[in-house]
Amino acid sequence: MAFYKKKYDIIVVGAGHAGCEAALAAARMGTSVLLLAIDLDKLAAMPCSPSIGGMAKGQLVKEIDALGGEMAKVTDKTAISYNILNTKKGPAVHSSRTQNDKMRYHMAMKASVEKQSGLDLKQGMVERLVIENGHIAGVEDRTGFGYSARAVILATGTFLSGLVHIGFKSIKSGRAGEFASYGLPAHLKELGFTLGRMKTGTPPRLHKDSIDFSQFVPQEPMAKPAPFSFFTEKISMPQVPSYMGHTNEKSRKIVLDNLKHSALYGGMIKGVSARYCPSFEDKVVKFPERLRHHVILEHEGLDTDEIYASGLGNSLPVEVQVEFVRSVKGLEHAEIMRPGYAIEYDYINPLQLKPTLETKRLPGLFLAGQINGTSGYEEAGAQGMWAGINAACQIQKRPPFILDRSQAYMGVMIDDLVTKGTKEPYRMFTSRAEYRLMLREDNADLRLMSMGHDLGLIDKHILQDVNDRKQQIKNEIKRIKKTIIKPVPLVNQYLESRNTTPIDNGVSLDQILKRAEMDYSDVEFLAPAPEPVSLKIVRQVVIETKYEGYIQRQIREIEKFKNLENVKIPEDFDYTKVNGLSNELCEKLSSIRPASLGQSSRIDGMTPSAIAVIMIGIKAARKS
Amino acid sequence: MAFYKKKYDIIVVGAGHAGCEAALAAARMGTSVLLLAIDLDKLAAMPCSPSIGGMAKGQLVKEIDALGGEMAKVTDKTAISYNILNTKKGPAVHSSRTQNDKMRYHMAMKASVEKQSGLDLKQGMVERLVIENGHIAGVEDRTGFGYSARAVILATGTFLSGLVHIGFKSIKSGRAGEFASYGLPAHLKELGFTLGRMKTGTPPRLHKDSIDFSQFVPQEPMAKPAPFSFFTEKISMPQVPSYMGHTNEKSRKIVLDNLKHSALYGGMIKGVSARYCPSFEDKVVKFPERLRHHVILEHEGLDTDEIYASGLGNSLPVEVQVEFVRSVKGLEHAEIMRPGYAIEYDYINPLQLKPTLETKRLPGLFLAGQINGTSGYEEAGAQGMWAGINAACQIQKRPPFILDRSQAYMGVMIDDLVTKGTKEPYRMFTSRAEYRLMLREDNADLRLMSMGHDLGLIDKHILQDVNDRKQQIKNEIKRIKKTIIKPVPLVNQYLESRNTTPIDNGVSLDQILKRAEMDYSDVEFLAPAPEPVSLKIVRQVVIETKYEGYIQRQIREIEKFKNLENVKIPEDFDYTKVNGLSNELCEKLSSIRPASLGQSSRIDGMTPSAIAVIMIGIKAARKS
Repeated sequence: MAFYKKKYDIIVVGAGHAGCEAALAAARMGTSVLLLAIDLDKLAAMPCSPSIGGMAKGQLVKEIDALGGEMAKVTDKTAISYNILNTKKGPAVHSSRTQNDKMRYHMAMKASVEKQSGLDLKQGMVERLVIENGHIAGVEDRTGFGYSARAVILATGTFLSGLVHIGFKSIKSGRAGEFASYGLPAHLKELGFTLGRMKTGTPPRLHKDSIDFSQFVPQEPMAKPAPFSFFTEKISMPQVPSYMGHTNEKSRKIVLDNLKHSALYGGMIKGVSARYCPSFEDKVVKFPERLRHHVILEHEGLDTDEIYASGLGNSLPVEVQVEFVRSVKGLEHAEIMRPGYAIEYDYINPLQLKPTLETKRLPGLFLAGQINGTSGYEEAGAQGMWAGINAACQIQKRPPFILDRSQAYMGVMIDDLVTKGTKEPYRMFTSRAEYRLMLREDNADLRLMSMGHDLGLIDKHILQDVNDRKQQIKNEIKRIKKTIIKPVPLVNQYLESRNTTPIDNGVSLDQILKRAEMDYSDVEFLAPAPEPVSLKIVRQVVIETKYEGYIQRQIREIEKFKNLENVKIPEDFDYTKVNGLSNELCEKLSSIRPASLGQSSRIDGMTPSAIAVIMIGIKAARKS
Repeated sequence: MAFYKKKYDIIVVGAGHAGCEAALAAARMGTSVLLLAIDLDKLAAMPCSPSIGGMAKGQLVKEIDALGGEMAKVTDKTAISYNILNTKKGPAVHSSRTQNDKMRYHMAMKASVEKQSGLDLKQGMVERLVIENGHIAGVEDRTGFGYSARAVILATGTFLSGLVHIGFKSIKSGRAGEFASYGLPAHLKELGFTLGRMKTGTPPRLHKDSIDFSQFVPQEPMAKPAPFSFFTEKISMPQVPSYMGHTNEKSRKIVLDNLKHSALYGGMIKGVSARYCPSFEDKVVKFPERLRHHVILEHEGLDTDEIYASGLGNSLPVEVQVEFVRSVKGLEHAEIMRPGYAIEYDYINPLQLKPTLETKRLPGLFLAGQINGTSGYEEAGAQGMWAGINAACQIQKRPPFILDRSQAYMGVMIDDLVTKGTKEPYRMFTSRAEYRLMLREDNADLRLMSMGHDLGLIDKHILQDVNDRKQQIKNEIKRIKKTIIKPVPLVNQYLESRNTTPIDNGVSLDQILKRAEMDYSDVEFLAPAPEPVSLKIVRQVVIETKYEGYIQRQIREIEKFKNLENVKIPEDFDYTKVNGLSNELCEKLSSIRPASLGQSSRIDGMTPSAIAVIMIGIKAARKS
C-alpha cells in the first residue's frame, strides 16, 4: 500500500460537527492534523434541523466556545434567528438557540478549517485503520491510499453502515444522497469492537410558497440578538421569524392508518430510536392521549425557499408523507421538496472508551460524536473538541484533559457516556447536570477560558480580560455586601415606589438585591459603584447574589463529590481481588475501568457497600 | 405503485446545467413542470472547471440568454473573473468566459429554480420510466413513488452507470461522492435504446496556501467586466486573477513512468475520452513532442481556499498524483484537497433523437446534456433549453422550435448531434459553425430575442428595445452609407493625423469606416449622427460595415443552404423505394430520418448523387 509521505500527528475521519472541532482544536494546540471528508461540499452539513443550541445544548456550545472552539463563532456568522430559551426560569437553564443558514454554515466552517495552519483538509473515504504493534498508525482510504498518524479520531456520524429508510425502501446511504461506509464498520468489528445499531431521522422539507403562513403563529427572533460566541462583537446577518402550528386528529389518523407502511413500525428498523426526538409515528403510538403536536417551520437559509418542518419527522412512504403533511392546517397545498426519512447506523457503545474518548482496545484511536451513540450537532461538537484536545495531549505527552461533572456539561456528558454507556441516542439535558446552577451559559467563559488558555486555545489577552472580569465581579460583590443601606426616608420612599418592603434597620446592599423584585438598577440607585460596572459584570453579580444560597449549597455538594472523585483507581486495578464484590459488578468494573471512586459510584447497579469494599481494596493495593 | 396526485406536463430528471434550463424554460412557457434532483444541495454543481463560457461556449451561453434562459444571469451574479477570449481576432470568434464562485453559482441557480412559478423542485432519484400505450407517462423514483407527466426530459449527466476511476480503484458514483444511477440505464436498455460509454475527468483541487504563486504568471480579469447576460446592468462580485504556469519534463516522466497505473492507460476505462479536453496521460502519450503543458490555477470561490488546477486532469493513483502535481514549479509543496479522477458513464448516441431532442423510439421522452454524448456546462445548458422548449411546444401543440445552422450555435450543435451522432464527447467549436460571422456573441440578442418572445420567454418591453435597436442600427448604417465626405483640407488633415490615406474625391462615410485603422470615433469626428448613438448600436454598425463583404457572402451561402433545408422530407418517407441509394445509406437514412434534404446532405457518407436521387424520390412521393 502506498502512503502519503507526510506523517501527521493526528488524523480526523469525518468532517461534521465533531470532526471539525476535533481537527481545529488539535491543530491549534500545535499538532499536525489531517481532516478527511467523504465530500468536501458537505463539511459541517446540517442534515437535520438548521439550528444550533437549545436546551442544555446551548451550554455545550458556549463551553466549546470558552475553550477556543469554532461552533459558536460560525453560528454567529450565519445565524438568521436568535433566541434564549427558558428565560422565565432561573439562569441555570437559560439556553441560547439559533436558526442558521445551512449553506452559509457549511461555507463558514469550511473556511475556518481551510484557513487553520497545521491542518490539511482532504477528500477521502476511510475503509480501514492502519495498526502497527498494537497501536494506531494511520488510515487507508477507499482508493487504497494510506495516511500515517500517531493518533486517529473517528467522527463518522451516521455513515457507518448507514441505511436510509422511506417506507419499505432501504437505501445504503450515510445521509440521504451520500455514500455510507460499509468497509470501516466491518473492520472495526474485526478489531474486536462491539457495534450497536441506532436510528434517527429527519422531517420533510417544504417549499415556502406552498405554505399558508396565515395559519401559523410567527415566532419572532430576539430583536437584539445576543451573540452565541464570547468573541463575537456584532451580528450582521438579517433575522427572520419561524412559524408555529399544530398537527391534528386527521394527521394522527393518517399516520395510525399507515403505521404498517412506516419503516419504523413496519419492522424495517432494528436500531434504537432517539427517545427525545421522536418521529411522528412514535408520537402517535407512545402518546395516544395527545391529539395534536407542535409543527415549527424554519427557514433553511436566506437564499433558499426550503423550509424545515420540525415535528413532522417520519419514515413513511412518500405518498403517505404527502397526505400526512397536507393534513396540517396551512400545509394543505404543501409541496415536499425532500421527503422525511429514518436512518439506521452503527455506533460503538462508549463503555469501550476511556474518559479521554480514546478506545481502550486500540491505543491512539479516539471516537467522537454520533459514533459514540449521541445525537445532536452540539453533543458531537463537544466530543470532537474533547477528543481533539486529548489526542493532542497524548501526542504532546501532556496529561489528559478531563473536565468533571462539576466543571462543565461536557464533563457530565463524557462521564455519562464512558461510565454508563448508552443504548439509545444520548442527548444532553440540563437535568443530567447535578451542578447545573454552577454550569451556566453565562459563566462558561469564567469557568473554562483559563483552561482553554492552558491548552493553547485561548489567547493571553482574552484570558487577561476574563481574569479582570473575575476580579471586578469579586470586588463588586464585596462592595455590595459591605455597603449598608440606612433606613432613611429617601431610601424607604424609593423601596416603596419599587413595591418592596421598607427597611427598619441598616441592611447590606446585597440583601436588598436578593429580593425577587429588585435588580441592579436598584443597587445603582441606592449606592452606585465608584466606577461604572459593565453589563457582563452586573449579570454575574446579580446571579451570584440572588442565588447565593443555592450556589453555596452546590459548592458544598461539589466538595463532597470531589472527595470521591479524587480517590483515583489505578488503571490496572484488579477487581477480582476485592472481597465482597458481586461477579456482575466485578465484571462491569473490570470492563469500564473507572478512573476514580466517584466514577465507579455512577456505574449502573453500583451500591454503597460495593463502593465501600472498593475503597478498602484501593487502600490495600496502595499499601502493597 | 403509488403516484403523486398532481399530474405534471413535464418532468425533468436531473438538475444540472441542462436540467435547470429545461425546467425553467418549460415552466416559463406555461407548462407545469417537476424538476427532480438526486441531491438538492448539488443543483447546478460545477464538478469540473468553475467557469462558464469560453471559445464557442460563450456564444451558446449568450444564445441561451437571448432566448430567455438563466445561465448567463446566474453567471453574472456569481462570476469572480471575466474575460473575452480571442479579442485579437475578428468578432466572429470573440467568446466570453468567466470564472465563478462554485457554491454561489449553485445557490443562485437553486434560488432561480425555487422562485419559478409552475415549477416544483424535488429530491428524488429516478429508477424507471412509466410508459402507457407506447407514450411516456411519468417516472418512478427509487422509493417506488411515481410522478405522472405527459413528457419527460432526461438530463442525467454522468450519472447513468457512473464509475469513478482513481488508479485501479473503480467506485460506482455519478460524480465523486455522489450516487450513480444503475436502474435507469438498465431500464433504457430494456426499452431498446442503444447505450454507449464515454469518459471524462477532472483535475485535482489544491489548497491555496500550499502554492507558491510567485512561480505563476497572474492572469488579471477584465478591469471593467462586460456582463454575460444581456439583462445584467451591474457586476457587483469582487474580481480575482487566475495564475498560469507549466508542467515540465519531470511531470511528463512521472506520468509516463506510471502510465500502467493510470486508470486510462491501465485498461480500466472502456469509455471514449473527450478529445479536446485530454487528461494529462493523454497529453504526454498523444503529443510526445510537447515537453510542457499549461497549468492554470483558478479560485473555486471567494470563501474557499480550494484551487482548480486546470491542465492536471488525470486518473492516476493518489500517490502518483501527489508526485506529478509537485513536479510543477510552484507546486512543490502543493496539498491536494481532492484528487483528480476519471469518470465513465453511459450515453445515448443522439442519432436516436429527433431535431427536437425527443427520442424517436419513445414519444414524449426527450434527452438533454451529457446523456447525448456532449461535454460542457454550456452545451448541456443549450440542449436543456432546447429540450425544455420543445417539450413545452409538444404539450401546447405548438410547432417544434428548431433553429438551423444559420441561426444559432445551438442549431449547429443539435444538427450535428442528431445528424452525425457522436462517439466521443462532443464539444462546441467556432469551426463547427459554417456561418459563424453571423452567429456572434454580440448579436445573439438581435438574432434570437424575437424568437424568445414568441415562445413566451422574453418580455414584450425587452423585445421592443431589441427592435428599436435593430432600427437604429439600420438607420445609422444607412446614414453613413449616404453621407459623402468631401476631400476638403480639414478632412484630409484629420485622416493624415490618423495615419490613413487622404481622399481625392467624395467618399461615403462607410467606406472610411471600412478601413482597418478607422473606428467609430472617426465617424463621429467626420460627420456625427444627429442624435448620439449608443455603444451597443455603434458596435453593430462597425462590425456590419467593416465585415460587410464577408457578411454578404455568408448571407448568400445561407440562402443556398436554406434551399436544401427547405426541402422537407416527410417523417414516414420510405428510403427503400428510392432508386440508386446504396444499402448502407438507405439504412442510415431510415434510422436517422433527416427532416430535410439539407440535413440528409450532412449525414456521414452522403454523396451528391445520393442527394439527387433522394430529391427525385421526394418529388415522386409528393406527386403520388
